Amino acid sequence: MTLVQFLDYVAVFVFALTGALTASRAQLDIVGFLFVACLTAVGGGTVRDVVLNRDAVFWIADPGYIAVACVGAVGVFFTAHLLESRLKTLIWLDALAMAVAVPVGVAVARRMGFDWPVLLMMGVVTATLGGLARDVVCNEVPLVLKARDLYATAALTGAGANVAAFALTGDAILATLACGLTCFGLRAGSIA
Amino acid sequence: MTLVQFLDYVAVFVFALTGALTASRAQLDIVGFLFVACLTAVGGGTVRDVVLNRDAVFWIADPGYIAVACVGAVGVFFTAHLLESRLKTLIWLDALAMAVAVPVGVAVARRMGFDWPVLLMMGVVTATLGGLARDVVCNEVPLVLKARDLYATAALTGAGANVAAFALTGDAILATLACGLTCFGLRAGSIA
Amino acid sequence: MTLVQFLDYVAVFVFALTGALTASRAQLDIVGFLFVACLTAVGGGTVRDVVLNRDAVFWIADPGYIAVACVGAVGVFFTAHLLESRLKTLIWLDALAMAVAVPVGVAVARRMGFDWPVLLMMGVVTATLGGLARDVVCNEVPLVLKARDLYATAALTGAGANVAAFALTGDAILATLACGLTCFGLRAGSIA
Repeated sequence: MTLVQFLDYVAVFVFALTGALTASRAQLDIVGFLFVACLTAVGGGTVRDVVLNRDAVFWIADPGYIAVACVGAVGVFFTAHLLESRLKTLIWLDALAMAVAVPVGVAVARRMGFDWPVLLMMGVVTATLGGLARDVVCNEVPLVLKARDLYATAALTGAGANVAAFALTGDAILATLACGLTCFGLRAGSIA
Repeated sequence: MTLVQFLDYVAVFVFALTGALTASRAQLDIVGFLFVACLTAVGGGTVRDVVLNRDAVFWIADPGYIAVACVGAVGVFFTAHLLESRLKTLIWLDALAMAVAVPVGVAVARRMGFDWPVLLMMGVVTATLGGLARDVVCNEVPLVLKARDLYATAALTGAGANVAAFALTGDAILATLACGLTCFGLRAGSIA
Repeated sequence: MTLVQFLDYVAVFVFALTGALTASRAQLDIVGFLFVACLTAVGGGTVRDVVLNRDAVFWIADPGYIAVACVGAVGVFFTAHLLESRLKTLIWLDALAMAVAVPVGVAVARRMGFDWPVLLMMGVVTATLGGLARDVVCNEVPLVLKARDLYATAALTGAGANVAAFALTGDAILATLACGLTCFGLRAGSIA
């Protein structure tokens, strides 16, 4: 398993947790949890793969992603009532998921040979559209549009850090690290 | 015309009726009826075909689907005022459309040679995303998220019945039947 | 640059302005402006290209479209407060964008060799889905569903005028002109 694949699994899992927490706030049943969790977990990456015309959408090629998302949803279903604030947990998990999803989106586009503007776009698309679908479907105000949260700003800056670091060093792992830390740092600073 | 093609036409037509009824509740004009009806009728199958990277999206390959959806929309436009309860009619028609759309989604994925997890996903995707788009666009609470309605639960269980019946008997028609009856039975039980 | 390419740039730019105006009404920050502007600008064309299985989605093949949308968003960010009525400006710009986007959608489908029902659908899809995504994401009542605005009606009639003019004369430029004028005329008549 490559680093990017591992991070992709992490992003899917954590996004699934945020989807399940939103389902919990909306008082859905267990299959509603699974539905919203999967939508959130694979939404952004699906748009990325379809728009880039990838050979196969990632979760069709490897349904393990769906399994991971379902495990996360079931876990939240049985533990969400233990949380002090589901919204606060949701926002922090979403920040974490985004910090992992941006470098994945950039890396997928880079390996397909696209130029930097497409890399930036795919970082943002992968990191934002799953959460956007979650919020639209559950009729919440989309996190991505809350100005105070620096959501899209963090994703775009992180993607930029990735492209810059890769241009300077040619080291994909360093670029991934720079990207994730930039995203999470900006987002965390705006939340805390 | 194969059984799956016939069922696909039925699903498109009945989903179009639910879209038109939603348009009627939102007091749209005739083109609004057509718009929401088509969105509902082909939404789920479009995502399915795009995600599976099918050669052509079904309603591009055969615009007859759009014609069928438009006929349904026009029919509802001239008769919706005769209904005692548009919402109740909508919910029952939606249950019927779903019971037909799940086996179609599973069958499309099966003929493309995918494994059972993808079959389950495509059954649910085909049956839920059109109605979800309808409800999101018309700003209704999505039916799929109403816990009492067993919506996604019915779709997922029906898809499971299809996969199980096919694994046991190898008979696609029997699997289709088991799938449709399971979906409609669960849904109807939760509505009635 | 062909006429269709030029019109495509115009449609993307003007749709981006409407997205940015919606972002302004929702009091987003600058990256929120960019996000909503890009979503609106390329949303309809993306669905068109994905559904038609085009070789590459237009803004992946030429990221210049994204640049144009961003320029529009930044321009609105610094000038929106000067407008007397952002909503009125938004509605008129949206009418203009639609009048340009319908012929682009029809032309793309025509050059790929599709038949007239697909041409009509792609005209409507290109012209409406970007604005629909904008309104759904920003939680506005979708313009496309406001009966008084003849939105989808104008798009569909314009696409029909395009198909009819092309069938009669075989002249793509004349068809484009007939289409744009029909769209804008109908829409303007319903707004004014």
